[in-house]
Amino acid sequence: MKDLNIGLIGYGFMGRTHSNAYKRVNDFFDVEYRPVLKAICGRNAENAQAFANQWQYESVETDWQALIARDDIDAIDICTPNNTHAEIAIAAAKAGKIVLLEKPLSMDTAEGETMVKAIEESGVANTVFYNYRRVPAVTLAKQIIDDGKLGRIFHYRANFLQDWTISEDLPQGGAALWRLDVDAAGSGVTGDLLAHCLDTAIWLNGKVTSVTAMTETFIKERMHTLTGEVQEVGIDDACAFLCRFENGSLGLFESTRYARGHKALYTLEINGEHASIKWDLHDLHRLDYFDHRDDSLTRGWRSVHVTDGDMPYMGNWWVPGLQIGYEHTFVHQVADFLTNLVKGESTAPTFADALETQKVCDAVLESARTGQWVEIA
Amino acid sequence: MKDLNIGLIGYGFMGRTHSNAYKRVNDFFDVEYRPVLKAICGRNAENAQAFANQWQYESVETDWQALIARDDIDAIDICTPNNTHAEIAIAAAKAGKIVLLEKPLSMDTAEGETMVKAIEESGVANTVFYNYRRVPAVTLAKQIIDDGKLGRIFHYRANFLQDWTISEDLPQGGAALWRLDVDAAGSGVTGDLLAHCLDTAIWLNGKVTSVTAMTETFIKERMHTLTGEVQEVGIDDACAFLCRFENGSLGLFESTRYARGHKALYTLEINGEHASIKWDLHDLHRLDYFDHRDDSLTRGWRSVHVTDGDMPYMGNWWVPGLQIGYEHTFVHQVADFLTNLVKGESTAPTFADALETQKVCDAVLESARTGQWVEIA
Amino acid sequence: MKDLNIGLIGYGFMGRTHSNAYKRVNDFFDVEYRPVLKAICGRNAENAQAFANQWQYESVETDWQALIARDDIDAIDICTPNNTHAEIAIAAAKAGKIVLLEKPLSMDTAEGETMVKAIEESGVANTVFYNYRRVPAVTLAKQIIDDGKLGRIFHYRANFLQDWTISEDLPQGGAALWRLDVDAAGSGVTGDLLAHCLDTAIWLNGKVTSVTAMTETFIKERMHTLTGEVQEVGIDDACAFLCRFENGSLGLFESTRYARGHKALYTLEINGEHASIKWDLHDLHRLDYFDHRDDSLTRGWRSVHVTDGDMPYMGNWWVPGLQIGYEHTFVHQVADFLTNLVKGESTAPTFADALETQKVCDAVLESARTGQWVEIA
Amino acid sequence: MKDLNIGLIGYGFMGRTHSNAYKRVNDFFDVEYRPVLKAICGRNAENAQAFANQWQYESVETDWQALIARDDIDAIDICTPNNTHAEIAIAAAKAGKIVLLEKPLSMDTAEGETMVKAIEESGVANTVFYNYRRVPAVTLAKQIIDDGKLGRIFHYRANFLQDWTISEDLPQGGAALWRLDVDAAGSGVTGDLLAHCLDTAIWLNGKVTSVTAMTETFIKERMHTLTGEVQEVGIDDACAFLCRFENGSLGLFESTRYARGHKALYTLEINGEHASIKWDLHDLHRLDYFDHRDDSLTRGWRSVHVTDGDMPYMGNWWVPGLQIGYEHTFVHQVADFLTNLVKGESTAPTFADALETQKVCDAVLESARTGQWVEIA
Repeated sequence: MKDLNIGLIGYGFMGRTHSNAYKRVNDFFDVEYRPVLKAICGRNAENAQAFANQWQYESVETDWQALIARDDIDAIDICTPNNTHAEIAIAAAKAGKIVLLEKPLSMDTAEGETMVKAIEESGVANTVFYNYRRVPAVTLAKQIIDDGKLGRIFHYRANFLQDWTISEDLPQGGAALWRLDVDAAGSGVTGDLLAHCLDTAIWLNGKVTSVTAMTETFIKERMHTLTGEVQEVGIDDACAFLCRFENGSLGLFESTRYARGHKALYTLEINGEHASIKWDLHDLHRLDYFDHRDDSLTRGWRSVHVTDGDMPYMGNWWVPGLQIGYEHTFVHQVADFLTNLVKGESTAPTFADALETQKVCDAVLESARTGQWVEIA
Repeated sequence: MKDLNIGLIGYGFMGRTHSNAYKRVNDFFDVEYRPVLKAICGRNAENAQAFANQWQYESVETDWQALIARDDIDAIDICTPNNTHAEIAIAAAKAGKIVLLEKPLSMDTAEGETMVKAIEESGVANTVFYNYRRVPAVTLAKQIIDDGKLGRIFHYRANFLQDWTISEDLPQGGAALWRLDVDAAGSGVTGDLLAHCLDTAIWLNGKVTSVTAMTETFIKERMHTLTGEVQEVGIDDACAFLCRFENGSLGLFESTRYARGHKALYTLEINGEHASIKWDLHDLHRLDYFDHRDDSLTRGWRSVHVTDGDMPYMGNWWVPGLQIGYEHTFVHQVADFLTNLVKGESTAPTFADALETQKVCDAVLESARTGQWVEIA
Repeated sequence: MKDLNIGLIGYGFMGRTHSNAYKRVNDFFDVEYRPVLKAICGRNAENAQAFANQWQYESVETDWQALIARDDIDAIDICTPNNTHAEIAIAAAKAGKIVLLEKPLSMDTAEGETMVKAIEESGVANTVFYNYRRVPAVTLAKQIIDDGKLGRIFHYRANFLQDWTISEDLPQGGAALWRLDVDAAGSGVTGDLLAHCLDTAIWLNGKVTSVTAMTETFIKERMHTLTGEVQEVGIDDACAFLCRFENGSLGLFESTRYARGHKALYTLEINGEHASIKWDLHDLHRLDYFDHRDDSLTRGWRSVHVTDGDMPYMGNWWVPGLQIGYEHTFVHQVADFLTNLVKGESTAPTFADALETQKVCDAVLESARTGQWVEIA
Repeated sequence: MKDLNIGLIGYGFMGRTHSNAYKRVNDFFDVEYRPVLKAICGRNAENAQAFANQWQYESVETDWQALIARDDIDAIDICTPNNTHAEIAIAAAKAGKIVLLEKPLSMDTAEGETMVKAIEESGVANTVFYNYRRVPAVTLAKQIIDDGKLGRIFHYRANFLQDWTISEDLPQGGAALWRLDVDAAGSGVTGDLLAHCLDTAIWLNGKVTSVTAMTETFIKERMHTLTGEVQEVGIDDACAFLCRFENGSLGLFESTRYARGHKALYTLEINGEHASIKWDLHDLHRLDYFDHRDDSLTRGWRSVHVTDGDMPYMGNWWVPGLQIGYEHTFVHQVADFLTNLVKGESTAPTFADALETQKVCDAVLESARTGQWVEIA
């Protein structure tokens, strides 16, 4: 068992999910590395120290450049707002550190390309946490598709529906609400939520070749948390797009934070010639599967309770019928990362993979601006 | 096409479902008889006439004996309160009339035996409307079981849950509420609801051999609609029982009118060695089916939307995806009755079949009284 | 009770649903007119006669113009392929007949405008059977929205997914499959299925102002039933579009006949500031409703079983818990039509209402051709 | 932060769930104690060491008496087969150790009483892991009931259905399958599964006063893992019972390992005068709630996604919409235990609470043997 010394930047929601993954992985997965929570880095020393106490980080840094400079750090994990990803990731790569990055890759494609270039030149192992690939039901969907059970694909559709920003009184910006501040986030639901849908879609169904999109900002002005001033809202509150995939199938995507009644309803469905698959995040331990080759009298959508030991990742957890939760997806990605690291390999989605998602996001936003179909290179 | 002249006794809820069945059957089923609504019979002439006008009955009778005496009546259909079933049915049988009877057969087993004796001596075609056998999904369940898909049966469970009598202000008795009056109904949920569950259970899973039961009357006194006086409630508001079937499986049944949130939730489930089946009346067009022989990675409960043309009765209705409703079950029973009539045969459940259900109901009520297990002869 | 003499043209699937509605309506609804099945009209005399026998039509015609010319016909009901709607409807209107028309209105907007002009000049009562408005759950949705329970609307989405044309061996055209023949149908899923979604959407959420669409024909050639020759497929197998409504909400629509596992899955969802609604045709007797004003600890999507007597149309049927089916929607439209007829009024959706749906369909198809957003006048 | 030194006996499935809880609790809950994994104890030294390595226990013991004798151990956690609970727990209590015990309490009531006596005499803090009380949805149910939202209770029903022992080839006994060996387990599904249902039921609905039960052993003989000999099966494969609660409500319970299609389907439902609640373990993050006081037109079962911060325990985990899993229930119990420990209090269910469940289990088994109703003292 080798130690892998982690320096994590950002102690927000994602800082917690990543920290948990590092602490859990060896209890449940047989991997050759043991992550060590060497340092937590955040600009606010007091908050960073509190986080270190809670999660048992060995040390605290307030300057990410100092963290990267430390010899006792093997891997930099970046859980900061989107507008800081590029600078930190490039610096870490140049310093020869392993880089783990919370999604999305970057503010835009151009920035993402500089990141991919830097990471590939440095040759360091890397991964981007598009964690939903590693929901066991989603990984199972990938297996089923790769086994050819669906046949020719006709349709792919995905939604990511939330309702937490409907109130006009919600401010934007600051530590808690940077996702609503276009300067920190780059975009609204497109980069935050549709990026998840796209990462999964490209993984399951291949390249997206063209899009036509529509965005909307329902509440035009909000107070900024940091300045206290009412400012224009720059993000997209909702985004929907139609697309075509390279395999000839049609895609339909939608995301919003104004769908009353849905907390984090990421759903996907893929319809093939022979079979179809559905999944949603609100019951993430289930996969719906329809197979037209079943006997006609007993044919129907099967609700597969993805908790058996022969299902992806589930042999490492409990017994059939006992579900796992959201945070386990990060444990799975860390487990895979540590396994691949032994072989000196990066873990998908890599920076390069995440750039493909970024390209589609950019095309979506461009189409929404121009009202035109946009081709993806 | 031959006419079959119907004389229907009782113009309540069941009078409507039976009348509808007679009027609908030839539009959808190719049978050799066309039911003719010759006469409606009810004690209240005005109400009977109104019903005749609505449903286009040719004539009205207020004396059921006069109806039976009419030469132009081929079949007597009995939709009256339970305490009148025996007298009318026996008279009709003795008069050589075909007899169709709304369930349950009788007030108790002894009475039912006299009815079976009379009907068998007369040799007339007969049927009892336990209509839920002919929900297409339930008929499909029967096919699946008869095909041996379930293997050895371990468990059968059924519930019939309602919530419409929770209010203490609800009276008992009279035309609308005779089901709450023990003198008219014989029992409460046992004869009204569990009888349905038992008819289906015996049909699908065979003979019940022993029971232990519990009943309760939650509201002890109610005003009687006819007398205006507060009287003791004689019916069972709730009844649950455990049982053993002849095939070695265990049964669990429950019915109540005090299950808040359930309108008419008749559910059944049967667990076999290889496969299981579930159904419920609130979504009667669906059958849930689980087959352990499915591939382990995609195995799950299948929600079968029973609307395709190759499914029981459904080829006579619309197209896949378009569901039918409650009243169609009566159309199906009438269609089967008319088909069998050509061959001179009765249609299951016959009086004799319904007597088996009555025996179990009596055993259940006896067990509830005595606190002992009761064997069914 | 007055007779209303019906002359129905077309004895296919829709001929059955309409005939059933005329025969059922007086059994369940108190209206002043009784429809009389005076004549069925179809080009094939033998088939028409068989249909007349089955449904008890009094007479048969093989020439629709002769039917219209008959003095004993009050109302013409048109259940023929789409390419014949205009000619028949205009002739019937000019002859002063009441006109009932199965959807869609017309082959395109221009043709539809001539129909509306003719019907308005004649002043005859008219209706177009967009039957899904009168699913009780959908009518209930309309009530809830009109009561203001949803508040400002943000999103409307609807799908109509089928899977019955996936096989390459399925031919196109002829009596059974004219919906696959562009010359008879005008378009594919857009006019057949999305038209339903749009009629409901406009009714519930108001005018659609602009669209961007994508269509696809997955199987490019099929044998024509009538000619036996393999011909290019002219219809759209799938169509999806984004749109904006006049009330500022965003719309997302999709239809296909290539969604394996879905038989006739018409679903709709509408998200408002305070509450949301969902419905689907595969369980048409349920409405899902979410109200954010519910107590936060017990707030969730409510599955409303639309079978109670105080719910739209349901007081005319059975008792709580007992569902109705597909064909009842036509009975409801006929009941409303007969009620309005007493007042000399047409029944929504009228020809004029149906033209609004046609305009959006045309815009959708134009957008799919041009790749541009299209405004609806 | 004070250390609490844990000595855990048993490294099976439950050893893992408890170990996980100790390691997770401080990351998510602010409690004053930090559990320290001081020693793992198991008879097989090699297996115990492997478990220690995996979970980072500081030391290994193979003799539980030696473990109890260690001064550096504050708390003994017992995760061994049922037939060892009493001896170990009593010894630990007498040694003044805190005792945490995996359910059930004991082999039978008599044994349980000696345990309660010992623990109460010692005065040590104690708890029994009936973990399902602390599924957030179940805890929420308790809150709703305690708030009086349900009113008078009429019905309580619970099932625990599994299907993992249907094969005749499955052996009994040994480390992995001791639950099938009556000598180690005491009973079959009654003590293993119904005990869970009963603990929750008594907590939510009060004392059970009388029962009538039925048990069955479907497969009569199995090979014993340790001896290799085919032996009679002594456990109950299935058990169902009717009961009455002190509050006047009726109960219906069933458990089996022969319900094909159900992995660990623990379901419960409680029907009150005004409202009802349903929950099942296969979707443990949801609570179904029906409130009759809702407006009649939009009334329906609410599917509450129990993931919001104001719901029990959920403020300690992620954000709305993101579900937790099975193992979190143990973390919750440990968190509550550590909180109460500061006050010197035990945590429900205590040994005394668990004895109440044991009494009902014994009455159930007695009733199944005698065929009589059995009163619970």
